Amino acid sequence: MNTYGTHFKITLYGESHQKAIGIVVDGMPPGIRIDERIIQADLRKRKPGKIGTTTRIEDDDFIITSGVFSGHTTGSPVHIMIENKNVRSKDYDNLTAQPRPGHADLTAKVKYGGFHDYRGGGRFSGRLTAALVCAGSLAKHFLPYTIRHELIQVGTLKDMDKLDDYLETISKEGDSVGGIIRLTTDPLPIGLGEPFFEKLDAEVAKMMFSIPAVKGVEIGTGFSGITMKGSDFNDPITDASGKTGSNHSGGVSGGISNGNPLTVKVMIKPTSSIKKAQVTYHEKKDAPSPLKIEGRHDVCIARRAGIVLENALAVVLADAHLANLRYKAFSEQ
Amino acid sequence: MNTYGTHFKITLYGESHQKAIGIVVDGMPPGIRIDERIIQADLRKRKPGKIGTTTRIEDDDFIITSGVFSGHTTGSPVHIMIENKNVRSKDYDNLTAQPRPGHADLTAKVKYGGFHDYRGGGRFSGRLTAALVCAGSLAKHFLPYTIRHELIQVGTLKDMDKLDDYLETISKEGDSVGGIIRLTTDPLPIGLGEPFFEKLDAEVAKMMFSIPAVKGVEIGTGFSGITMKGSDFNDPITDASGKTGSNHSGGVSGGISNGNPLTVKVMIKPTSSIKKAQVTYHEKKDAPSPLKIEGRHDVCIARRAGIVLENALAVVLADAHLANLRYKAFSEQ
Amino acid sequence: MNTYGTHFKITLYGESHQKAIGIVVDGMPPGIRIDERIIQADLRKRKPGKIGTTTRIEDDDFIITSGVFSGHTTGSPVHIMIENKNVRSKDYDNLTAQPRPGHADLTAKVKYGGFHDYRGGGRFSGRLTAALVCAGSLAKHFLPYTIRHELIQVGTLKDMDKLDDYLETISKEGDSVGGIIRLTTDPLPIGLGEPFFEKLDAEVAKMMFSIPAVKGVEIGTGFSGITMKGSDFNDPITDASGKTGSNHSGGVSGGISNGNPLTVKVMIKPTSSIKKAQVTYHEKKDAPSPLKIEGRHDVCIARRAGIVLENALAVVLADAHLANLRYKAFSEQ
Amino acid sequence: MNTYGTHFKITLYGESHQKAIGIVVDGMPPGIRIDERIIQADLRKRKPGKIGTTTRIEDDDFIITSGVFSGHTTGSPVHIMIENKNVRSKDYDNLTAQPRPGHADLTAKVKYGGFHDYRGGGRFSGRLTAALVCAGSLAKHFLPYTIRHELIQVGTLKDMDKLDDYLETISKEGDSVGGIIRLTTDPLPIGLGEPFFEKLDAEVAKMMFSIPAVKGVEIGTGFSGITMKGSDFNDPITDASGKTGSNHSGGVSGGISNGNPLTVKVMIKPTSSIKKAQVTYHEKKDAPSPLKIEGRHDVCIARRAGIVLENALAVVLADAHLANLRYKAFSEQ
Repeated sequence: MNTYGTHFKITLYGESHQKAIGIVVDGMPPGIRIDERIIQADLRKRKPGKIGTTTRIEDDDFIITSGVFSGHTTGSPVHIMIENKNVRSKDYDNLTAQPRPGHADLTAKVKYGGFHDYRGGGRFSGRLTAALVCAGSLAKHFLPYTIRHELIQVGTLKDMDKLDDYLETISKEGDSVGGIIRLTTDPLPIGLGEPFFEKLDAEVAKMMFSIPAVKGVEIGTGFSGITMKGSDFNDPITDASGKTGSNHSGGVSGGISNGNPLTVKVMIKPTSSIKKAQVTYHEKKDAPSPLKIEGRHDVCIARRAGIVLENALAVVLADAHLANLRYKAFSEQ
Repeated sequence: MNTYGTHFKITLYGESHQKAIGIVVDGMPPGIRIDERIIQADLRKRKPGKIGTTTRIEDDDFIITSGVFSGHTTGSPVHIMIENKNVRSKDYDNLTAQPRPGHADLTAKVKYGGFHDYRGGGRFSGRLTAALVCAGSLAKHFLPYTIRHELIQVGTLKDMDKLDDYLETISKEGDSVGGIIRLTTDPLPIGLGEPFFEKLDAEVAKMMFSIPAVKGVEIGTGFSGITMKGSDFNDPITDASGKTGSNHSGGVSGGISNGNPLTVKVMIKPTSSIKKAQVTYHEKKDAPSPLKIEGRHDVCIARRAGIVLENALAVVLADAHLANLRYKAFSEQ
Repeated sequence: MNTYGTHFKITLYGESHQKAIGIVVDGMPPGIRIDERIIQADLRKRKPGKIGTTTRIEDDDFIITSGVFSGHTTGSPVHIMIENKNVRSKDYDNLTAQPRPGHADLTAKVKYGGFHDYRGGGRFSGRLTAALVCAGSLAKHFLPYTIRHELIQVGTLKDMDKLDDYLETISKEGDSVGGIIRLTTDPLPIGLGEPFFEKLDAEVAKMMFSIPAVKGVEIGTGFSGITMKGSDFNDPITDASGKTGSNHSGGVSGGISNGNPLTVKVMIKPTSSIKKAQVTYHEKKDAPSPLKIEGRHDVCIARRAGIVLENALAVVLADAHLANLRYKAFSEQ
Repeated sequence: MNTYGTHFKITLYGESHQKAIGIVVDGMPPGIRIDERIIQADLRKRKPGKIGTTTRIEDDDFIITSGVFSGHTTGSPVHIMIENKNVRSKDYDNLTAQPRPGHADLTAKVKYGGFHDYRGGGRFSGRLTAALVCAGSLAKHFLPYTIRHELIQVGTLKDMDKLDDYLETISKEGDSVGGIIRLTTDPLPIGLGEPFFEKLDAEVAKMMFSIPAVKGVEIGTGFSGITMKGSDFNDPITDASGKTGSNHSGGVSGGISNGNPLTVKVMIKPTSSIKKAQVTYHEKKDAPSPLKIEGRHDVCIARRAGIVLENALAVVLADAHLANLRYKAFSEQ
């Protein structure tokens, strides 16, 4: 449900407009020196402020309530909490009768029998990803490899130098666009991933799809490799470390990291909340009716999502890393 | 590791050239009438025989050793076993020194310290998917909706009427191609999927990537929706059941089924084993060296993978279905 | 690690002397009306104040930060936090060099490489059970049966009317005593418990032993039934509801509740922290040396543990109850 | 449900009178040399044959179908299967209408809607423990410490030299008796057990109660320590290894092994199936009615249960051992 991982196990709670969101991270090895600035820096990257992003700006002041003593992890779960402060609940009052297209309004209402907290998207709000970012920041404290994210396409735009102008146009239209983000790691050592059902790529895909608005995940070349033949797609191995010439496999073979960089591409759909009128079902009228969504929404959530994906990937790698250490430990006993 | 699911929990074991492969399915509700012909029919769909598929043909005679009494499930785990009979291990002897590109030979060797069973790909063989098919067949016994699979592209070919000719050409080249398979379900009721970390789309993606050779997963329109704006991508709701005009979301909103058909597209890479020479690392020579892979391999594994994906999806839906029943049960108490 | 349960899943965090302890309760059905006074009342039962209990009295003000909206559960995880306020860390400074007998001082130090938070017992403090009590209070909001606890023996004393005098004597000796607590439920319906490995009695035992100081668990007559023959021990069934004449089985048959009250007896060892001198290993002296433990400790922790065991049992029953609903839901589909 | 463990994960299937029982063991480290004689020897210890044990004697020929190659584990799940051969189902035909006292007949019938396999106790049969014994034998292949079991009391008898005579008397009465078994390990290193919810003693207790007929579990001195004061119960530490003078704690402090032998006492109730008439509910008569149970039953199942408990404990220790290795691996990185 709201817990992910086996060795690096995170439990996420919170809703957009209640007192707080937060995450419990279980499995942080003891003795890790915690630098809160790493967490702050990651949270800052997620913050809006640029063109095309929401004007709801939270302080994102986090508090670590447990699991850290004298600046180091204790081996106990680390709990990080972020209060919800800048909340404007009235914007959402009308949405209970007219579920927004592309949103979880209706699915949540039916699934939770009408008791879900609909304000600000409740638990389906992008706001919860702030807590996920914190978990990833903790993971990065001990992960021996780095991850980079890159926005490679926004709507029809591939030249990111023109992003501000492009999004301003979309914003004026009262519309939104999606984006494609590529994640790339340092070459991972051979061995991360636990087949059959905890393969590295399977865990990565699961985590990516857990993030709101994600609609597609590729490892390596992915769908665009459909026109290639095996003789092109196969990555010939060049040396004993597993290094390959090309990296169509995206660094994973048989669900296990193969010595090359892990590369993941993630499709983020256009933001669902748009000002432009949409004709969609209205419960009280029992018929479709125009809907204009007010409130402070991103025109392109992909612009802020990179750090979320990056840190979510860090969580997956932390879990796989700790799982793999077990094998090493055993063989070195 | 080798167990998937919470309510419909499957445990997969086996390697390609040992005595048997099999699956333990825990959580089959009691009292389901088991029709072994459903399992047989599904296994037959996975069988080779058509152009472009391997000539290793196993009988795939399965045996149910437990969990079924007087033709009905008992509530105990159902264990299904398939013996490995048609095994030709000598084909693989040379591969221990020269790991095949695109295969798990090297990753498995390193991860398992050289103790993995390399014959026939061992646990990384597509053969294990026969057991997964059996689990899906069991799921279909009680799932109240159907799933269809369709091969929509193979290499550069989109007109499936010409598939035999196309694959024959690829086969003569000693090469291979990949394929894209689309899965579509009946409209699912609103409510399947357990956010935050067991969202329906996240579980589907995880399961798809667990299947060998999968390199990309999309829910609904996916990557090709990147050029759409929100006003196009959003699926307007047309009535109280959640039905939408378009289905770009692929039937999932906020990780929960939204009343529409679930649609999934899966990219299967070209088969790694090809006859055409590839220059790849040879351990004894400590240098790249040409490799021609003999043995009985598929030219296009995607041709046989449809039923595997379909039944793997059935496993995911069975788990989500049983999870969702809990809520219903509670509210109807 | 710090998560328990499948359907009613709790994640516990915190250490005695850091900012807060807390619990995330995942799986609360949506729409449950939350009455905070139930939680307060349970926490109050756990509070010291009576003879033989510690003088560290915390306010135990809890805060619900999420999962509750308009007074009802939303279906999202409920997070309850309790701040640590009345903290006197200096009492513990000397204990890092001389691990207390019967405590986790040495095991924690070795396991967590010296990075554990040793103040106030850290994560091994009885204080964490306050968060567990909160989880049980939530469970009680929807459990359709009640649980009672009873202290039936303290040290050599079986007549509980004389408890205050008895404990005052022990206290003056600078010593401590243990206790036996009996838990009894209303007759449970037939069906709670999921064999083979999630049997009701097995889950109860696991949960009881998770609570600090527990050293023995019996279901029903338990050890004292050793001298009985089968013809006496067997509980003859008297009617179709499963009701039995005697209840030596403690309400569980084959790991499943059998229609009778669940009865559990739990042995709580004497409090480890005593004022009386004990000769035990001192690291700096590398030899045993006398130790007198100062601080505010219970003479008989069993006196306050009843509500902890009761609510811990409520957590187990909530999980089993929700699991069992699934079956019902399925058969009533 | 039927899966136990995190790192050494076992999945048990089977019913007494269907084709087979078996176990899938996931997490056996690769490269362990498997000696089938160890498994055979353990299964032999579980076999009946002595006075007071059933005359249903199975061959218990097991087969390893996967996970072992060239005599060593491969890192894939090990599947062990035991066929059911010596089956006499007619003995049980009358039991569907008159559930036996102390048995799971009625609870299983209600829980599984009448679809359970009632023959020979079905999944509640002691027979399934043969598969559990196999899992423990695998664990012992790599566990660096040994476990011993000892029958310390049978009914009123404490002098085990007189066991045969005693049980013969009980048998002639058509009655049965229970037993208490003590498990003792070599001194365990400090560190096994993962608080808060996977404490070593909690996992041991859970596993013990998973075994049919277990009704009580004590770690160390347990219930009989109730009359002791803290100054007696506390085990003073004598040196840096954690060694203590006494071992009332049974080798566990704070849920973590403390450097001393783990000692566990387990109460096994008298066998439920007795020849002596019992007056218990008969469904067709809708009233209590005398029942004499025929068939081949143990007079004292405790006589054969020692190896089951021992090997079940080995499973728990294997899981805890592998979990603890992770920490070591991390700190030695």
